[in-house]
Amino acid sequence: MHDASEPFRTTLFKSEPVSYANHQEYLVRGGRSLFRLLPQAFQGLKQISVIGWGSQAPAQACNLRDSLAGSSIRVTVGLRRNSASWSKAQEVGFQEADGTLQEMWQAIAQGDLVLLLISDGATAEIWPQIFKTLRPGSTLGLSHGFLLGCLKMQSRSFPDTINVIGVCPKGMGPSVRRLYEQGQEIDGAGINTSVAIEQDIDGRATDIALGWSVALGAPFSFQTSLEMEYRSDIFGERAILLGAVHGMLERLYATKLASGLSTEEAFLHSAESLTGRISPTISHKGIRGLYQEIAPDQQPRFATLYNAAYAPARTLLQEIYEEVASGNELRSVIMRSHRLAEEPMDTIDSTPMWQVGKQVRTHRTAEDIPLDCDTAAIYCAIMIAQIDLLKEKGHCYSEIVNESVIEAVDSLTPYMHYRGVSYMVDNCSTTARLGSRKWAPRFDYMIYQSVLPYLDQKFSSNTPFDAFQNHEVHEVLTVLATYRPPLDISVGG
Amino acid sequence: MHDASEPFRTTLFKSEPVSYANHQEYLVRGGRSLFRLLPQAFQGLKQISVIGWGSQAPAQACNLRDSLAGSSIRVTVGLRRNSASWSKAQEVGFQEADGTLQEMWQAIAQGDLVLLLISDGATAEIWPQIFKTLRPGSTLGLSHGFLLGCLKMQSRSFPDTINVIGVCPKGMGPSVRRLYEQGQEIDGAGINTSVAIEQDIDGRATDIALGWSVALGAPFSFQTSLEMEYRSDIFGERAILLGAVHGMLERLYATKLASGLSTEEAFLHSAESLTGRISPTISHKGIRGLYQEIAPDQQPRFATLYNAAYAPARTLLQEIYEEVASGNELRSVIMRSHRLAEEPMDTIDSTPMWQVGKQVRTHRTAEDIPLDCDTAAIYCAIMIAQIDLLKEKGHCYSEIVNESVIEAVDSLTPYMHYRGVSYMVDNCSTTARLGSRKWAPRFDYMIYQSVLPYLDQKFSSNTPFDAFQNHEVHEVLTVLATYRPPLDISVGG
Repeated sequence: MHDASEPFRTTLFKSEPVSYANHQEYLVRGGRSLFRLLPQAFQGLKQISVIGWGSQAPAQACNLRDSLAGSSIRVTVGLRRNSASWSKAQEVGFQEADGTLQEMWQAIAQGDLVLLLISDGATAEIWPQIFKTLRPGSTLGLSHGFLLGCLKMQSRSFPDTINVIGVCPKGMGPSVRRLYEQGQEIDGAGINTSVAIEQDIDGRATDIALGWSVALGAPFSFQTSLEMEYRSDIFGERAILLGAVHGMLERLYATKLASGLSTEEAFLHSAESLTGRISPTISHKGIRGLYQEIAPDQQPRFATLYNAAYAPARTLLQEIYEEVASGNELRSVIMRSHRLAEEPMDTIDSTPMWQVGKQVRTHRTAEDIPLDCDTAAIYCAIMIAQIDLLKEKGHCYSEIVNESVIEAVDSLTPYMHYRGVSYMVDNCSTTARLGSRKWAPRFDYMIYQSVLPYLDQKFSSNTPFDAFQNHEVHEVLTVLATYRPPLDISVGG
Repeated sequence: MHDASEPFRTTLFKSEPVSYANHQEYLVRGGRSLFRLLPQAFQGLKQISVIGWGSQAPAQACNLRDSLAGSSIRVTVGLRRNSASWSKAQEVGFQEADGTLQEMWQAIAQGDLVLLLISDGATAEIWPQIFKTLRPGSTLGLSHGFLLGCLKMQSRSFPDTINVIGVCPKGMGPSVRRLYEQGQEIDGAGINTSVAIEQDIDGRATDIALGWSVALGAPFSFQTSLEMEYRSDIFGERAILLGAVHGMLERLYATKLASGLSTEEAFLHSAESLTGRISPTISHKGIRGLYQEIAPDQQPRFATLYNAAYAPARTLLQEIYEEVASGNELRSVIMRSHRLAEEPMDTIDSTPMWQVGKQVRTHRTAEDIPLDCDTAAIYCAIMIAQIDLLKEKGHCYSEIVNESVIEAVDSLTPYMHYRGVSYMVDNCSTTARLGSRKWAPRFDYMIYQSVLPYLDQKFSSNTPFDAFQNHEVHEVLTVLATYRPPLDISVGG
């Protein structure tokens, strides 16, 4: 098991201590100047095989290829020859002729570092065959602890002849690519990763993992284990990252409409406010900074809503965490994946609010987007409840704030602002898409049944909001903000 | 494994063949005239211990006591001495002085037939102690397959020194009691049961089980196994019985409001229509009979809605069934139960529609309750989708129609009509209450995202509605209707 308060075991990269709120962790800062270290980090590796072409694979394959340009290391995409993705990989320059596009099983057999970025459903099905195909001495790379969860459910383990590492970007694939591209102008732009050293047979695993992370453009890499990673990752996307934001916005939109706002006004005061005002404010000024922007005469209402929402949000989040940690959520994903071909997922933006959203986006003016007090208060309550829960469950702060704040405000809500909720959700993994569809309605009903009816009641305790004002996470965010460039994610054209 | 096409192994009761739609099953018809057989069915039993005081226990204890009045068999309630239920049992006449109220462990040790009717959460916790306490040669009675599910999850089994039987009323406890009371006037009034013979060490298990069922007042008893029972039961309450009806009504109410109806009109055209008009019509005339009552100019709209709703309903129902069959749902219930003391369940009728409902109920006129076409069509689509799914999964028709139709229209929706959704749901078991709260929002979103946006589209296929019109379940309902008295459940004062 990792211990984030111990340094990374690397001599090549710099394991930097960071302190906040009586906690200390070690991080590795990235940046383009470190690309020169990559040949050393990957010493002895001839081929990095990127398997799959979903959300992460195209981004990671392109970033690795660009970062390793000029070196002798080949980045090869591995796909089934008859898949629809084959030609998509060709379109961005991976070619059979030069060995950068291979049939999947060949790429797995030939890779010195094999990044398994296929869907969770496929992973659950073909892992035994993959384990047989990997060469002893090679390194298996995962961007997600899902496979570990699968193995645990069946009391199995990784082959002991390979390294197993995880480099898990805290943002969906398109963000990993887009921020990397922006990083050519602004050094340090990129998506943070968490790094797990699950199995190290030759003492090289840490350097290979950090090399991979730096090559992806991660501004900083922090430590985790595959177990903690898949818990926080699968939990996070069901909660504040996707499920919660979707469900809370449906309910807030309906509530605004019922209070007499027009459809466009209701959209402005719910979704637009969240993605265009609340999320960027948190990104630049932190969570407490958001509260300070609420008009003084609205601040008491913020406190009331926060106090009403915190406890029911915490209860629902606890349920989600237990479903994930117990294996239930993985079993659900695997069962549902088997039926996806004949029973595809619903569209989630066919409901009236997202149709209104399409209209709103055609004539939006950034300055006119309101800072809605109710939307801000409920979003903050869910976010802080998630932070508190993950702390209680033993996650380190850099993992917590990445899964609860940074990935939300710097990666996901900007995409939602740009193209709408469905675009955002459906650019994520199948596991994320299924989870978001499953839990969003629960957040909606949580607010509908357990928050909104109780706003007129006097709360006997102001405890949640008091805790909010003095929360140590505000300091954590301030410190971690120094680890990234002053950059807005740009998602337009 | 049971085979419902084989007769019950009883010489005491009459195992009656029933045929429909090319299927044959055996049932046992109940009735007060059979109470004289109870001493023979329970031969050698001195004490029947009813453990618990939730939904089923008070009803079953009272019915058994009344049915066995005058016999030498004692019906004893077993409870923890310091529980709040102790005085409630005393209030209805169970007394320590005459041995009809005992400390729980004493009642378990002393019972010849021990009916374990405690909550699922408690069952999951104390079953090892219960197994140790039951006397060899005694009979363990369950009204639910939950315990089998628990054992399977942990690869454990029942002790081989006892009989294990299931008698599972297809209605919540208060209905089991109320219809039994009505049965004093109208012989045959009562709630049907499914009967499972899980373990028969002495050849007596079937007669004891049928005796128990007849004593509860079941109009007829049909065959199942604990495995099929818990699947269909836990599934059914998450689906058409509770979760689906709650979620679909929230969505229909919101939709009616948005279309311009007043709050009372919207309630009349959703909840009131379902509980006061649609459900009683199905009870008296069957599902096709309901369709025939739809005004001719509305029937095409019924078909459109039915066609739009059937497939998404089937997909969601399939997911629920898999969650139940895989053990996920039981694990969820057990995990959540551990936290119920500090984090109680939400109230589900705090939302605006149920507040309106309270108003509507104060001045309702039965004749003014409309038959709403949309509500009827969506309800029927979910109901038939559930029937089709259970058939595909191998359940016998009497189990299917009890879990999908009869329990809904004769037991649950009448209570909902009388007192509102929360009263209905919260008179069920904790497992049912948790499941209803979990899945209702999913039915709401299924209709919101996948049905309502597509009504204007021309459906290329009319297949679901054609299948509805010629469905074999209509014949099954007609045949099974002959097995019960022409009686409306009366829930009023």
